[in-house]
Amino acid sequence: MVMQIEQQTLYAQQRLQLAPVNQVFTYTFDDLSLQSGARLAPVTLAYETWGTLNAEGDNAILITHALTGNSHAHDIERPDDPKAAWWNPLVGPGRPFDTSRYFVISSNVLGGCSGSTGPGALDPVTGRPYAMSFPVITIRDMINAQRILLRHLGVRKLALVAGGSIGGQQALEWAVAYPELVSKVAVIAATAALTAQAVAFSEVERQAIMNDARWQGGNYAPGQGPDSGLAIARMLAVITYQSEEAMELRFARKPACNKEVPSPSHFPDLGGRFDVESYLYHQGQALARRFDANSYLYLSRAMDLYDVSSGYPSLEAALGRLRSRALFVGIRSDFLFPAAHVRWLADKVRATGGDATYVEIDSPHGHDAFLKEWEQMTAALSLL
Amino acid sequence: MVMQIEQQTLYAQQRLQLAPVNQVFTYTFDDLSLQSGARLAPVTLAYETWGTLNAEGDNAILITHALTGNSHAHDIERPDDPKAAWWNPLVGPGRPFDTSRYFVISSNVLGGCSGSTGPGALDPVTGRPYAMSFPVITIRDMINAQRILLRHLGVRKLALVAGGSIGGQQALEWAVAYPELVSKVAVIAATAALTAQAVAFSEVERQAIMNDARWQGGNYAPGQGPDSGLAIARMLAVITYQSEEAMELRFARKPACNKEVPSPSHFPDLGGRFDVESYLYHQGQALARRFDANSYLYLSRAMDLYDVSSGYPSLEAALGRLRSRALFVGIRSDFLFPAAHVRWLADKVRATGGDATYVEIDSPHGHDAFLKEWEQMTAALSLL
Repeated sequence: MVMQIEQQTLYAQQRLQLAPVNQVFTYTFDDLSLQSGARLAPVTLAYETWGTLNAEGDNAILITHALTGNSHAHDIERPDDPKAAWWNPLVGPGRPFDTSRYFVISSNVLGGCSGSTGPGALDPVTGRPYAMSFPVITIRDMINAQRILLRHLGVRKLALVAGGSIGGQQALEWAVAYPELVSKVAVIAATAALTAQAVAFSEVERQAIMNDARWQGGNYAPGQGPDSGLAIARMLAVITYQSEEAMELRFARKPACNKEVPSPSHFPDLGGRFDVESYLYHQGQALARRFDANSYLYLSRAMDLYDVSSGYPSLEAALGRLRSRALFVGIRSDFLFPAAHVRWLADKVRATGGDATYVEIDSPHGHDAFLKEWEQMTAALSLL
Repeated sequence: MVMQIEQQTLYAQQRLQLAPVNQVFTYTFDDLSLQSGARLAPVTLAYETWGTLNAEGDNAILITHALTGNSHAHDIERPDDPKAAWWNPLVGPGRPFDTSRYFVISSNVLGGCSGSTGPGALDPVTGRPYAMSFPVITIRDMINAQRILLRHLGVRKLALVAGGSIGGQQALEWAVAYPELVSKVAVIAATAALTAQAVAFSEVERQAIMNDARWQGGNYAPGQGPDSGLAIARMLAVITYQSEEAMELRFARKPACNKEVPSPSHFPDLGGRFDVESYLYHQGQALARRFDANSYLYLSRAMDLYDVSSGYPSLEAALGRLRSRALFVGIRSDFLFPAAHVRWLADKVRATGGDATYVEIDSPHGHDAFLKEWEQMTAALSLL
């Protein structure tokens, strides 16, 4: 294990000296004590970095991805293509996550399926994938894993932690759990805890996966997973990431132009097909091709379980721990993480003596706006 | 067939003379030409009536049920129990649907599974259930079937047609398709056509059913249907019938008190169970026990396909046909049929010269409010 860590460090150092190319690194460490009391060993995190860490180790920015994201927040070969990486227009010289001044890190989340240890990883005890024997993980566990990675990279202090959605939960948790390590924090489209409605949607998605005959209690072979169930889950998730307004603008009641994408169940259309249905089939199919169903279960559950006040006497006690300058970004049309709840959270932080700014993105794009509204996101982040 | 019709008429007459008891009647007629051009033969409608038809046959009120409802709008044995029948508090002497003055009729919808012909009925050609060979049916088909039933009952004119949700679509369609037969109409929590978001939710529900291994392309034996898939569909539907606000008031993040109801997939809880999850499991299980999955597919699709302007040169041309005094009822917190869209529809009717009143129910209960807010519903209906 030590050998492996050293090798990773070497890779990381080499990378910093190399010409810019997209490269995903991994760092494996011996074990991680989880919030549940369980222990996960070993743990690998996949990560990418941009920019250079200074000698003091205090110019690092950690950006944390959304539910089905990965470490590829920025694309060095196509830095101007918003589709090449999930926060591409926000990362680079002169951009909010300024790679000429900061060392920007993005790692695939613990529990994920893009290089980091998750339910698809091999359990060293059995030699087979963990599947549903993977322990329940929390947002705290995710940031604890990131903390070990940061230490490995030589980061002593985070100039900024920023993320949206489950990434925003992680950013908030960083600022509450390790106030001394976080100078600034941007909590975007995330709240103190999910609403009952959001938990409800999330559970429908998981049931759609677990009721797929190919799920097999989680013990599917690679490539033989519950693609249809995962596609159905994604269809629902995509609805919750958008808004009534955005879907009306884009689809309204237009009939489908593309009828080639099969529905998840592969059953023929009943009385025609709407464009919004084709779109959702496509989104479902695309996720099923790139994402692991069991990871989806664990990560979405971590979102549900997150409550920033957990383990503290009160919400105020939790938020009173913040020492970071905090930016909270709500989205007008977000119904998964309602803007009013984000604003309420910012108010609460201020009420406990914290330095919190609230900005609302005026967009019809719902929750997804933090991955679309580049100008407003840039303006919001400039306030930090 | 003639024999059967006469027998039904006899039953209906007998019923009117009998002491009040809850009794569901059926009327079977030879065939129905569908909007698609297909022909359905024979067709049975299950129905209940309360009150007495006058000699002119013009004091009839037709009330049309919601997606998974049935003919039991009122319970004569427990008239004061809101849970004994779906519009119980609105039906009876002195109530909005006043049985001392009107002959109130409620029939199970065409395509349903509570006594009326639907995909679970036997196809006389094959001797087996229609299943997915049942033709796609529309809101127009539903009201055409009701029209034949009304004629059989001796109804010459409807004093009022009233319904909510898919029942509201039927009420609206009655007033547009047969303006000369409808004196007054109450369109409740229904719009000119579903939003893209509502169609999208609806399609996720259907895919959850069709992806259940027990669905078998619709060819399941009675009692062997896709209960889990139907339960998942219902879980999602229940979310869309409520609101973020209502679910927060009732559940927030409370842990489950009752952990006995299994989840649809029967997989153990992942990191505990929230009360809202138990509630949704219960709702899902309850629907799976009482409702036919294929009926769910056909009826929910009819909702999606409905557009009041279909077959007319324009929406204005369709709405300009109305001769009824029209009441439109929106619900503040309804996100499936947004109040703004109901109000817009009422405005459109007025703009084409129609007599339309809009009332908004101020309730946190979302779409379901028309089955809960008895005082406001009574007040709204009193405006007609």
